[in-house]
Amino acid sequence: MDAEEFRRRGREMVDYVANYLENIEQRPVYPDVEPGYLRSLIPTEAPLEPDNYDDIIKDVERVIMPGVTHWHSPYFFAYFPAANSYPALLADMLCGAIGCIGFSWASSPVCTELETVMLDWLGKMLNLPEHFIAGTHGHGGGVIQSTASEATLMSLLAARCKAVRRAQASNPEKSEAEIVSKLVAYTSEQAHCSVERASLIGGVMMKKVPTDNNYAVGGGMFKKMLEEDKADGLIPFYFCATLGTTASCAFDHITELGPICNKENMWMHIDAAYAGSAFICPEFRPLLNGVEFADSFNFNPHKWLLINFDCSAMWVKKRQDLIGAFKMEPLYLKHENQESGMITDYRHWGIPLGRRFRSLKMWFVFRIYGIQGLQAYIRKQVGLAKEFESLVRADKRFEICAEVIMGLVCFRLKGSNKLNELLLKRITKSREIHLVPCQLSGRFVLRFAICALTTDSRHVQEAWRHITQLTFEILQEPNH
Amino acid sequence: MDAEEFRRRGREMVDYVANYLENIEQRPVYPDVEPGYLRSLIPTEAPLEPDNYDDIIKDVERVIMPGVTHWHSPYFFAYFPAANSYPALLADMLCGAIGCIGFSWASSPVCTELETVMLDWLGKMLNLPEHFIAGTHGHGGGVIQSTASEATLMSLLAARCKAVRRAQASNPEKSEAEIVSKLVAYTSEQAHCSVERASLIGGVMMKKVPTDNNYAVGGGMFKKMLEEDKADGLIPFYFCATLGTTASCAFDHITELGPICNKENMWMHIDAAYAGSAFICPEFRPLLNGVEFADSFNFNPHKWLLINFDCSAMWVKKRQDLIGAFKMEPLYLKHENQESGMITDYRHWGIPLGRRFRSLKMWFVFRIYGIQGLQAYIRKQVGLAKEFESLVRADKRFEICAEVIMGLVCFRLKGSNKLNELLLKRITKSREIHLVPCQLSGRFVLRFAICALTTDSRHVQEAWRHITQLTFEILQEPNH
Repeated sequence: MDAEEFRRRGREMVDYVANYLENIEQRPVYPDVEPGYLRSLIPTEAPLEPDNYDDIIKDVERVIMPGVTHWHSPYFFAYFPAANSYPALLADMLCGAIGCIGFSWASSPVCTELETVMLDWLGKMLNLPEHFIAGTHGHGGGVIQSTASEATLMSLLAARCKAVRRAQASNPEKSEAEIVSKLVAYTSEQAHCSVERASLIGGVMMKKVPTDNNYAVGGGMFKKMLEEDKADGLIPFYFCATLGTTASCAFDHITELGPICNKENMWMHIDAAYAGSAFICPEFRPLLNGVEFADSFNFNPHKWLLINFDCSAMWVKKRQDLIGAFKMEPLYLKHENQESGMITDYRHWGIPLGRRFRSLKMWFVFRIYGIQGLQAYIRKQVGLAKEFESLVRADKRFEICAEVIMGLVCFRLKGSNKLNELLLKRITKSREIHLVPCQLSGRFVLRFAICALTTDSRHVQEAWRHITQLTFEILQEPNH
Repeated sequence: MDAEEFRRRGREMVDYVANYLENIEQRPVYPDVEPGYLRSLIPTEAPLEPDNYDDIIKDVERVIMPGVTHWHSPYFFAYFPAANSYPALLADMLCGAIGCIGFSWASSPVCTELETVMLDWLGKMLNLPEHFIAGTHGHGGGVIQSTASEATLMSLLAARCKAVRRAQASNPEKSEAEIVSKLVAYTSEQAHCSVERASLIGGVMMKKVPTDNNYAVGGGMFKKMLEEDKADGLIPFYFCATLGTTASCAFDHITELGPICNKENMWMHIDAAYAGSAFICPEFRPLLNGVEFADSFNFNPHKWLLINFDCSAMWVKKRQDLIGAFKMEPLYLKHENQESGMITDYRHWGIPLGRRFRSLKMWFVFRIYGIQGLQAYIRKQVGLAKEFESLVRADKRFEICAEVIMGLVCFRLKGSNKLNELLLKRITKSREIHLVPCQLSGRFVLRFAICALTTDSRHVQEAWRHITQLTFEILQEPNH
């Protein structure tokens, strides 16, 4: 395919994309396929000779679309949102064309520098403490990770390294293995599963802190656990707080937890994967109070800030803590400017060596929406969640299961878990809207998350009519 | 920005991309900027109100392009190639629009299923042993990782988990920490720095195996190290072999190393990040002989198979080894089909939970080029490296420093390291071509890698003329 053909096919693809997104609500949001559906639709081997491009495009509708869960349908209310916006799509086209691999400053200076500056922009939008802003002389700064899971893992590994070095400094006779076996990390029992996974990868013990009635961790319980563990000879070294849990969007009390971590010389990481985007609105920013005690902070603009996946923003107070843990400098990656102190080699900040030019997406989205445009988007989605909450509250058969603070509503039919499981099964089967469940205090709960950019009051109302219609049918059935 | 404006801006962007790639050789391949150049060119904060789109596009030339190292310039011979092709760019546009997050089968079935089938296609193109092919009943299979670093890390973590479980089964009184402190991983002293980094992350000891005159690891030296370490009470558990090292594209002798690993119950991972793509050509496939002894195998189609970053292909013999290590199943990620045995939840296969629909790029590229088209591309690039090798060999002032097997030529001026460092400095400063160095047997060596899709004989000849011109100038200078 030469440039001329790409011009033609590219225009066609732009139209296909625009049509897809414009008419997405006409497609069933959840696909009607069985596991293994795809194998019978395509050959078992790659073609020896080139296929016809038109056949490939025909196959997009024949093979691909029937198996897509349409995350950008306004009837998609599952998981959390995945960002998708036209400006981000345009920036991604440019990112693909430039196709640089930004592992070091020299491998493409702008790829590193724009990332640092965009993380500063975003940090300022969130009103993060000054020590998280790189500026020209800061000791901290931001980085784009692929996912929150990676940010959590990186923070835990950096904390582990720091804790081992400190313990060895005061007990030089102790082996690293001995120290690591005494280290304890903590997180909420409501934390995302990737937090526990990080501890398994890092080979350290992790304890789950019980939550209060609002599914949040407070200082009291945490302090008690620390005292017990220290008395047992263990070394508490890391706490991962959550702002906006996956199950119910609960907020740990970081103003209580942060000072405890600081006092105990523990690393506090804050995972605000979903909720973090909302902190650009002054009315939500108080939920981030306490971030000044944190060593690292992360949220996913690729969830709720209109920047397509992947773009997980992470800040550290002291960059040296992160990059000092696993720095490697072979000759083929060295470059002249490396010792200048002015530059950043992002390969030391994460797991992967190679990195895409992802800050372009941030630059396009921030400029094309402006801060006010992004705030309006967040507020609209929270408003839609409140609208859904009112609908639920007005129906005596249902109950709200957790405070609605952002774009997520946790609700259920008053009654057994079985009844709610049945309702969800019917919802999934109907394919008109898509939800997933969670578990709160042993109860099976339905999660209704405002996800798509184009979700409007009309879709929320329709979704509720659909849910109540299915509820009506279920409750008519003999065994209920 | 609405769909209508996206149609217009999208077409403009397609043209911009086509123009950029068509005329890329007119840009200096390496940018003339100092660290920190970008901050003075853009505001210190994001705009409150939307910027004008035309201004953003103007800024692409004003702010972005001056800081780009142009990896797709035909004069770029640094590092290893980063793939870039029009079909992959088109597929990525579609991937962005669908914007699904494929952490589980249910989250978008086609995203998982196409990935499994594309990895089967690619595995068959490489003539991988049957146990790596997922098919409908296989115990192994393939997965897309972001980078080779992640594939290495995942294999090491899976191996660690397996080794600990085995050691605990025979010595139930031993703690995990005790066992981990005895584990030893091995790799070539020529292995990529990310391999050693994986051992630091995994918290296990790693030893570097010395290489032979061709910078490759053979069975003899490896066996000797194992015997000594076992005699010292250590537990060898993992070996990462390299096919195509970063410094000189050397190939470890896996037909010797594989049986040793198998006999010792060690996990053998093969990292063929760059060279792996060439194994689709029957004439290069013998270099992969011995893969039948491996537990996992990885290479980067995003390097040399025309599929844009990121797309690192990894296969495992037993998927249970990989996913068994860190499986987590919260309710919000459970779905109906999960226990069917027919399906794959790729979130268990890697570090990140979220995943883009990257197999679309593979599908487009395999079909639009066909296997023969991809083979022709590999052969052309190897041919260009051979052409450069002949030019070097014909000039008595230079020497070739490692056998030229694929698209990489390691060469230097006969003489001191200082002289070669000076030559590279001049090359970098001229910005007409771009190379990076490596170190081989203590010598400073220049790496000339055929990278861009559009590099032709003409560019190789020009590069050589340029290098010899600079050499001539240097050798004229008084102190030489």
